[in-house]
Amino acid sequence: MNQTNKKPQVVIIGGGFAGLNAAKALKNAPVDVTLIDKRNFHLFQPLLYQVATGTLSPADISTPLRLVLRNHRNTQVILDEVIDLDPDAQQVILNDHPPVPYDTLIVATGVSHHYFGNDHWKAYAPGLKTVEDAVNMRRQIFAAFEAAEKESDPEQQKAWLTFVIVGGGPTGVELAGAITEIANSSLKGDYRRIDPGDAEIILIEGLDRLLPPYTPDLSEKAEKTLVSRGVTVMTKAMVTDIKADLVTVKVNDEIQQISAKTVLWAAGVKASKMGEIIAQRAQAKIDRSGRVMVESDLSVAGYPNLFVIGDLANFSHQGDKPLPGVAPVAVQEGKYIAKLIQKRLIGETLEPFTYSDAGSLAVIGQNAAVIDLKFIHLSGFIAWFIWVWAHIYYLIEFDNKLIVMLEWGWNYFTHGRGARLITGEASSDLASLIPDTSYEPSINKVESPATAKV
Amino acid sequence: MNQTNKKPQVVIIGGGFAGLNAAKALKNAPVDVTLIDKRNFHLFQPLLYQVATGTLSPADISTPLRLVLRNHRNTQVILDEVIDLDPDAQQVILNDHPPVPYDTLIVATGVSHHYFGNDHWKAYAPGLKTVEDAVNMRRQIFAAFEAAEKESDPEQQKAWLTFVIVGGGPTGVELAGAITEIANSSLKGDYRRIDPGDAEIILIEGLDRLLPPYTPDLSEKAEKTLVSRGVTVMTKAMVTDIKADLVTVKVNDEIQQISAKTVLWAAGVKASKMGEIIAQRAQAKIDRSGRVMVESDLSVAGYPNLFVIGDLANFSHQGDKPLPGVAPVAVQEGKYIAKLIQKRLIGETLEPFTYSDAGSLAVIGQNAAVIDLKFIHLSGFIAWFIWVWAHIYYLIEFDNKLIVMLEWGWNYFTHGRGARLITGEASSDLASLIPDTSYEPSINKVESPATAKV
Repeated sequence: MNQTNKKPQVVIIGGGFAGLNAAKALKNAPVDVTLIDKRNFHLFQPLLYQVATGTLSPADISTPLRLVLRNHRNTQVILDEVIDLDPDAQQVILNDHPPVPYDTLIVATGVSHHYFGNDHWKAYAPGLKTVEDAVNMRRQIFAAFEAAEKESDPEQQKAWLTFVIVGGGPTGVELAGAITEIANSSLKGDYRRIDPGDAEIILIEGLDRLLPPYTPDLSEKAEKTLVSRGVTVMTKAMVTDIKADLVTVKVNDEIQQISAKTVLWAAGVKASKMGEIIAQRAQAKIDRSGRVMVESDLSVAGYPNLFVIGDLANFSHQGDKPLPGVAPVAVQEGKYIAKLIQKRLIGETLEPFTYSDAGSLAVIGQNAAVIDLKFIHLSGFIAWFIWVWAHIYYLIEFDNKLIVMLEWGWNYFTHGRGARLITGEASSDLASLIPDTSYEPSINKVESPATAKV
Repeated sequence: MNQTNKKPQVVIIGGGFAGLNAAKALKNAPVDVTLIDKRNFHLFQPLLYQVATGTLSPADISTPLRLVLRNHRNTQVILDEVIDLDPDAQQVILNDHPPVPYDTLIVATGVSHHYFGNDHWKAYAPGLKTVEDAVNMRRQIFAAFEAAEKESDPEQQKAWLTFVIVGGGPTGVELAGAITEIANSSLKGDYRRIDPGDAEIILIEGLDRLLPPYTPDLSEKAEKTLVSRGVTVMTKAMVTDIKADLVTVKVNDEIQQISAKTVLWAAGVKASKMGEIIAQRAQAKIDRSGRVMVESDLSVAGYPNLFVIGDLANFSHQGDKPLPGVAPVAVQEGKYIAKLIQKRLIGETLEPFTYSDAGSLAVIGQNAAVIDLKFIHLSGFIAWFIWVWAHIYYLIEFDNKLIVMLEWGWNYFTHGRGARLITGEASSDLASLIPDTSYEPSINKVESPATAKV
């Protein structure tokens, strides 16, 4: 550690988009930086759904934190979990490490799944936040087709071939699009007793349109495209119960039941537990989903050296609603804090944070995406093409970019999905392949829905 | 299924090198082929150690069985586990599927780990047979460096930085070489409190030299190279006990104890349980490690339609000892059976199986391998270069070849190991990262030590 020298100690919790960008921007600052994360890698979450659907491998979208920060001689990485915080003594309490003192603390631990108070749904409707989530989801999706091939009872077989995705945001749209491609292209000809093309993919959204954060015309484009590819889109539909193979949905006061062995959760998120801790220890205000209300400089009221950035922060000083929980907001907030810290070191101040929104982008499937560049709305192939290059561009490590380009190029022409491994579970009892829920969601994943800004 | 038509039913158990090659060679034969495997992919096991050491991802060395056999219209794949066999009624009993009748049965379920009757060592000394094994081993190796970085007690820190590999065969040699590269190159500069280069890698072999199957000059070359790279090689050393962080070794009647948190098992193998089943049901003779003694046509004595191939077979009709359990033997046996079946269909016979040995090859590390081409022995860079291209060539799917070439090319120049993810376990309690032993070794992995024939 650097306890002995006198440089200001900057501690960052969370190596997602927000925390990692803050750390990177402090490379040449006269401070000691300590980045604390529970995982040893940064995860490029916008592409996590491609791991879940068998196109990419976890390592393709992950970068070891120590590798990224190797040449930051003023920076150390601690692999550990933060369990408490003492903002008055200015130190962070870790699970398996002595307390870490700080002069400035940046909390960027993101958000995790939220089942709206129905946590028992989790076992039947896995979410998508971590690499383990993605591998579990991948196993469940591809194991369902295997189970259908073996199933002799037609009703059960239909249930194995029915995929329900809860949540019509970017992640839900992308999952629905990808699973449709799996059924219609990737697995074509692989089975002898079933036709994967018979699979039914149902996308359920509670509001009146898909991609609620986007403009209505793009929502409509997205829905039209998904429907044309065979997805059943249900809007204004509330999921009221999820069981092992039954989903209950309420569509304008009418109860519907869907027999499905595979239910994927792409709906709510709630703040990681650091939100609560900050609320308790620093009397911070939190919003309904537990995100910390921050000042216009991203600090916590009354604690000018305690900052919350990324998805964990509720920044409501710009526009009529809080900034969205997407990667570009996290990146810009991380860089802002790094600048603010350096300004303060030389006795200067920095104007309040403002987010410059370059537009939103969500992919629907091969050759199809929607994009809102403010001055123009695009969809179809051009939008998809921009989406591809935006993601390639933002992938952190050069080797990952090459690999992903190659995988995508190959899959584009072959619909290959060579990563469709059923792993993590050697059992051949496919019915037992419910996702592994034996671990808690990591407290320090910076969540970002599968959108990119360009 | 194909119960209704009258074509001869060929059933193959195991989608490794032996079983898959038999299935592929029967593409145009007038038979119905049923391939039964517990996993949905073929694993290129010679490169499994590169997943365990963070160079490749599981999908890079795996190929979905259904994809390989997609265009074999006479072939179906059943994802299930074989639990019994009735050679008189000629049917195979599955765990989760109706019995499968056969006219010809090919058993190629390979071998699994063998702890010489010390199965309690398994929890402390994981082996390397499945994708899950590799990911567990990868987690354990890289988590050890993280734990050392956090450890304040010097003795404990040294134990975290001590890696013991049991078994000086090809897999042990390759693991030792790779972990040395991780310590000296890949992780260089990643830590602030430890120098990964301080890691001690100890390779333990019970016989008097490494790579016992190879000629003494190559064994010597391998040992010299490993030693020059910092590996401690112990020969004539018997492991007598393995505990959580203590390995007891007997070196010519002298007991030594090694404090090590990471112990990797690359020693014994024993036949998968199909060996026992065949011994019971078909009165087959089995050898000391449970492999089935086969006739000169690879059939089981008294059961001309029951064949055992690959590592599960003990073929002792050529040379003074059984054929080695390596991929090329498995491949040639698989192709031989396919030919034999087709000959029989037209009332002809086929001469006994003979293995054509093109030579052996084992890699020691970057720029270093040993190769025995019979007419010439090579080592160093040239051998390594041949090793690389032999493996690239034999990787089944074209896209995998491209990906692996790219990964290798990148890692060659950067020593990157971008796949060094600590996954499968979100806990930050590194000391708890012992391998997941919650599943049984798959019964149908065709084992092949990490060697290639060229």
